[in-house]
Amino acid sequence: MIPRDLHIAQAASLKPLDDVAAAMGIGSHLLEAYGENVAKIKLAAIDELADRPRAKYVVVSAVTPTPLGEGKTTTTVGLGQALCRIGRQATVAIRQPSMGPTFGIKGGAAGGGYSQVVPMDVLNLHLTGDFHAVTAAHNLLSAVLDNHLFQGNATGLDPHAVTWRRVLDVNDRALRNIVVGLGSRTDGIPRQTGFDITAASEVMAIFALARSLHEMRERFGRIVVGYTPQGTPVTAEDIGGAGAMTVIMRDALKPNLMQTLENTPVLVHAGPFGNIAHGNSSVVADLIGIHGGDFLVTEAGFGADMGAERFFNIKCRASGLTPDAAVVVATVRALKAHSGRHRIVAGRPLPEALLAENPDEVHIGGANLRKQIENIRLHGVSPVVAINAFPGDHPSEHAAIAEIAQEMGARVAVCTHFTDGGRGAGELAEAVAEAADEPSDFRFLYPDSASLEEKIETIATKVYGAAGVDYDRTAARQLATYEANGYGRLPVCIAKTHLSLSSDPSLTGAPTGWRLPVREVRASVGAGFIYPICGDMRTMPGLGATPAAHLVDIDRDGNIVNLS
Amino acid sequence: MIPRDLHIAQAASLKPLDDVAAAMGIGSHLLEAYGENVAKIKLAAIDELADRPRAKYVVVSAVTPTPLGEGKTTTTVGLGQALCRIGRQATVAIRQPSMGPTFGIKGGAAGGGYSQVVPMDVLNLHLTGDFHAVTAAHNLLSAVLDNHLFQGNATGLDPHAVTWRRVLDVNDRALRNIVVGLGSRTDGIPRQTGFDITAASEVMAIFALARSLHEMRERFGRIVVGYTPQGTPVTAEDIGGAGAMTVIMRDALKPNLMQTLENTPVLVHAGPFGNIAHGNSSVVADLIGIHGGDFLVTEAGFGADMGAERFFNIKCRASGLTPDAAVVVATVRALKAHSGRHRIVAGRPLPEALLAENPDEVHIGGANLRKQIENIRLHGVSPVVAINAFPGDHPSEHAAIAEIAQEMGARVAVCTHFTDGGRGAGELAEAVAEAADEPSDFRFLYPDSASLEEKIETIATKVYGAAGVDYDRTAARQLATYEANGYGRLPVCIAKTHLSLSSDPSLTGAPTGWRLPVREVRASVGAGFIYPICGDMRTMPGLGATPAAHLVDIDRDGNIVNLS
Repeated sequence: MIPRDLHIAQAASLKPLDDVAAAMGIGSHLLEAYGENVAKIKLAAIDELADRPRAKYVVVSAVTPTPLGEGKTTTTVGLGQALCRIGRQATVAIRQPSMGPTFGIKGGAAGGGYSQVVPMDVLNLHLTGDFHAVTAAHNLLSAVLDNHLFQGNATGLDPHAVTWRRVLDVNDRALRNIVVGLGSRTDGIPRQTGFDITAASEVMAIFALARSLHEMRERFGRIVVGYTPQGTPVTAEDIGGAGAMTVIMRDALKPNLMQTLENTPVLVHAGPFGNIAHGNSSVVADLIGIHGGDFLVTEAGFGADMGAERFFNIKCRASGLTPDAAVVVATVRALKAHSGRHRIVAGRPLPEALLAENPDEVHIGGANLRKQIENIRLHGVSPVVAINAFPGDHPSEHAAIAEIAQEMGARVAVCTHFTDGGRGAGELAEAVAEAADEPSDFRFLYPDSASLEEKIETIATKVYGAAGVDYDRTAARQLATYEANGYGRLPVCIAKTHLSLSSDPSLTGAPTGWRLPVREVRASVGAGFIYPICGDMRTMPGLGATPAAHLVDIDRDGNIVNLS
Repeated sequence: MIPRDLHIAQAASLKPLDDVAAAMGIGSHLLEAYGENVAKIKLAAIDELADRPRAKYVVVSAVTPTPLGEGKTTTTVGLGQALCRIGRQATVAIRQPSMGPTFGIKGGAAGGGYSQVVPMDVLNLHLTGDFHAVTAAHNLLSAVLDNHLFQGNATGLDPHAVTWRRVLDVNDRALRNIVVGLGSRTDGIPRQTGFDITAASEVMAIFALARSLHEMRERFGRIVVGYTPQGTPVTAEDIGGAGAMTVIMRDALKPNLMQTLENTPVLVHAGPFGNIAHGNSSVVADLIGIHGGDFLVTEAGFGADMGAERFFNIKCRASGLTPDAAVVVATVRALKAHSGRHRIVAGRPLPEALLAENPDEVHIGGANLRKQIENIRLHGVSPVVAINAFPGDHPSEHAAIAEIAQEMGARVAVCTHFTDGGRGAGELAEAVAEAADEPSDFRFLYPDSASLEEKIETIATKVYGAAGVDYDRTAARQLATYEANGYGRLPVCIAKTHLSLSSDPSLTGAPTGWRLPVREVRASVGAGFIYPICGDMRTMPGLGATPAAHLVDIDRDGNIVNLS
């Protein structure tokens, strides 16, 4: 047994951040310390580093995960550590974890075992307050909006057509649907609304996609907060909130520098949702990290159909950067689950039957891996399969995954970075380096000029394997309105379950013959994408019967206990 | 005309914080940098500094203020600067401003003119995120509470007797009264509740009063979140939230070190409300600052009947520290307003008639100053009157204030620190140094053992000048319950208007013959005080027709504009 994550993290030997930054070519004058083991990097770094060589850009994605996750962050961290071990200077870029789920069931998101970002408690709690700034900026706009209604509603905003809600970084189901403005006449205009978790805020997506302070300011101004009865969009600029939001978010736009257990530099920045938003860390962090050495390894949320597709078509569109290789993390348990014979539930032990040696099952579930490799290839990028080994795996099952990868012409490596740190991902690092050295043929899946319907259908049929798309009447009307409003050139971000390539979480493997149902379509105009809703998207989690909030505490020495 | 506050602040010449801390005897090993011009001080400083000499402890209070405020923070900063100029090492301790009002009408709270805490934009925005931590810890307990109701309500908490609300640091009137838990069965239990501003959170009061991490943990556990139908209190410990709250608040408990325009060290820490809470900066900051040199100058909110009374009877009870002198800030405009002949409205120009030379009016309104000097004396502390000079004042009016002070046997000095910095408060510094050298006869106004009613009546009659106290039936019943629950030994914090010595904001001077009406009585058991409600206490402000949120922005160079 290896020790618990928190114990490994607490025993880590951290380097001064000046040294960590120096490895990336970043001088101390570009750092602002935030506590002892985190620094913000000034945005001036983007220009200062621009003349340095461009690193190879590697995105880490995965097969369609089980509800437990397949160790994507851990693999991202392990790969970064491994590249440094083989003498290639690497920088890791990940999203900041949301604090809400840290006190729910999920636990933190700093990687795991001997492939962690440290200090994990700082990462999983406030870090440098960027999420809090998002909460504050978002809710200031909410207050400005309700005040706009209260003070005479000069724009003629329809109170029933307000789309801007409020956010908090806490799992609080009671806030999903609320009525505000009750009380007396001076207590506002009563109306129904609700709270989402902060990661779901459009402010989060905007600051993840902006390339500069000024671009962030412009994007905030473009946020659509609702509509008039005539259907005219009302923006944050119209009601006078975008400047103050920018001031609140000014420091948050600077990426946070941390390190792995092996002192590899890590940029932790932004954490937009992976279904209703694009689920990738910030553009600004990558604009800095891309000049930080030989490799920039960045993570994209969920399976390759979700995070990687948005990485290619939304994030790279915004940043102008082009990827050189893509890792697809695969696990034996996920592929066995994709055979359709097992059901994995978060918080419960794995089914006994899933633990028995069964390479055939891996081959059956491997349909999912095949499709996800294809999804990388669709964008002209070299795929590398990382087999994230677990203690109960059997060699025959690893061999089965390797066979699938080789049939698909993808490089493949078994990794033990959870138990062995960077040393356990040496083969993966070599494979990634080879793949990244191949000439890149990166391409977007669709041109800006395609219609929103064409974009949705392209992703649904080519990436998800759907036979077609069905639009509810509402959705069709919304798409027409968005095209009329001039949003037609935006990319799309399809909000569907991450637990299947399809929109039905119970369909395993690589389902075909199904149709994608689009119930409604929403617009994040400031972030710059249109998001069709395909299934129930929960944007505010709840707490379980025994949430981590009951267990996390300090001990007699003031140390944190039960944080995971 | 002197330049605008933001321009003066942006032109300041700041010292490295290591040097600022060194002046207090604090080594760099006790600092954690947060950005370039703020550091947190580790709590180990309390023990490390314990053997150093104890500074003189000076509290800065005021006459009953107008809605514009009388420059108490500015005087606190100016006095600190002036003491350093006359060769006495001083540390200033102030509350962190609330961000909500920064985007409303009030503007920031960093002092003003040439007596400011810098950088003022950092101070008025997130600082090191302590308020955000309060918001997060408070709302985690709210989520745990609603989840407790949802998951079976094992304590038998009465949903109609829940006293714990939610908080946000934004002026948002629409959140004052809300209904949560709407939607489907999995979206919680519907009930009415609301949001207060973060400064009004009991978490804020607790972290301002705790002497250590462990004491904060215990206090969080004692928070009463509501009652069973039988009237049994249900605590944060009972529903399992106090440990996680402590982990969220761990770093917030470390005081923030900043500096004035003249590089005097400033501890900025906590910002509890001044009516429903005790309105003073943190005990932890003062436990460090008290060994930081010759003087620790700390500010107490509103007039001497409010902030100073709670400083003496709540904060000093919690800290064990005893004050050596108390400054009462007086302005010509406030005393003229206390004549009852003028009405001052925030956001409008002063009435013409108030600006005319009229020392007689100052004498009439001086009744308020006399009473506030007496309120300091009641606690055995030497009062010093600081005449905070404004450009339109007349020398005869300053003389009138000085006469009143001298009649009362108090030291007095005219100060021009707003326009002149520390140089303008030299006489005040000398007077404070003399007063603090007198032997202190500090005493609490009432013993712990007095009943809650006795405590309320003592403050009402001796400090406010009331003829007596009237309790509504609800209030009387609540007092009886609190005594029965064992809260009778706690001090009381009377929530009344800060705009009059009485509970009626329209009564000027030093009203007598009135009775204090106690409508209801609430309990902050974790913070450790009982607070009777005497009048309408607004715990969530609103935005005006043209709030600062519409004006604050960045300019072409990315600098903040219109923040005040």
